Amino acid sequence: MPKRVDHEQRRRHIADALLRVAATRGLHTAGFREVAAEAGVSVRLVQYYFQTKEQLLLFGLRRVGEQFAERVLPRLAAAGLPAAGRERIEFVLLATLPLDAESRSLHVLYNQYFALALTDPSLAAQPYGSDPDALEAWLIKQLRACQADGRLPPEQDLADEALAILALGVGLGNAILGGRRSADDARRVLARHLDHRLGPPR
Amino acid sequence: MPKRVDHEQRRRHIADALLRVAATRGLHTAGFREVAAEAGVSVRLVQYYFQTKEQLLLFGLRRVGEQFAERVLPRLAAAGLPAAGRERIEFVLLATLPLDAESRSLHVLYNQYFALALTDPSLAAQPYGSDPDALEAWLIKQLRACQADGRLPPEQDLADEALAILALGVGLGNAILGGRRSADDARRVLARHLDHRLGPPR
Repeated sequence: MPKRVDHEQRRRHIADALLRVAATRGLHTAGFREVAAEAGVSVRLVQYYFQTKEQLLLFGLRRVGEQFAERVLPRLAAAGLPAAGRERIEFVLLATLPLDAESRSLHVLYNQYFALALTDPSLAAQPYGSDPDALEAWLIKQLRACQADGRLPPEQDLADEALAILALGVGLGNAILGGRRSADDARRVLARHLDHRLGPPR
Repeated sequence: MPKRVDHEQRRRHIADALLRVAATRGLHTAGFREVAAEAGVSVRLVQYYFQTKEQLLLFGLRRVGEQFAERVLPRLAAAGLPAAGRERIEFVLLATLPLDAESRSLHVLYNQYFALALTDPSLAAQPYGSDPDALEAWLIKQLRACQADGRLPPEQDLADEALAILALGVGLGNAILGGRRSADDARRVLARHLDHRLGPPR
């Protein structure tokens, strides 16, 4: 029987090496050579799976989103929260904040991708916004439940409400990452924002 | 009479060249050679004024803060707003958003510095947070005036209130920069946040 290679697994192995290089030395330093060394494979193999650096970067970004989901979804399922509403919003938003080493490294990666895409047209042109879109769609669904629940006035614009919550989360995350505020400060400010907008947890 | 050289002006000329390179090609691409070419001077001269790349980067970051102040303060003075309070907060926060080409380029630079500092210990170790500190101190002063004015309850934590406003601004700025939201969306969400927390403009 011929040896079967799990190509998807190999691509993930290489992309995860990219993310480790990026989290410690910066995404801009992660060329084919550095990634190959970190993954323990040949440069040729990296090139076989990813023809261009952009393809490698984009697959890496997909992995950031996957790692976030792998991290959050099981915990959310286990948390025993009401099916929808304020408690779930707070739980997931807290998961986006850099409150421990693992989430910190995801946050660093996200910032590096964002900064790189600002001056790299080939990266910016890609539809790499799909994960933020997924989070936003999820959040709007939760806010609709809050509206049905009487926590938000029926005329409230849910897209604006979601934008404010997501933007606050991004800014709080950067305040922690930049060492300007503590995790507790961010938790408290997020909770108060949700209290003001949706009422306290029940 | 010997020719007098304005060293401070030359340093600014070189640092501004760094910022132009960074805004178009990325801060990570801006070495002594690229900056010298952009500034139209020799690499040796760049090295004379900035012994290390970190020193050049830090002086460049100071320039970002100075350019922001040069941009905002005259407009704020000319706007004829009440001496302190909600209207001023909204005016200055709007000025931090990437709503035109000039403020967009400052925002891109700030993101690049932030991302680079996350994996560059020599850059992260510098006290480069002084400009955010200045903006935060200013904001707390404005919020105190809102408190005196009855727009905020006397027991309200002003540092938390300031953190929420600044974090929202950072997140809204990134939503515009990343092409996820329009300038109008950001303006509206910022105004509503201030309405909710401080009451509508008078």
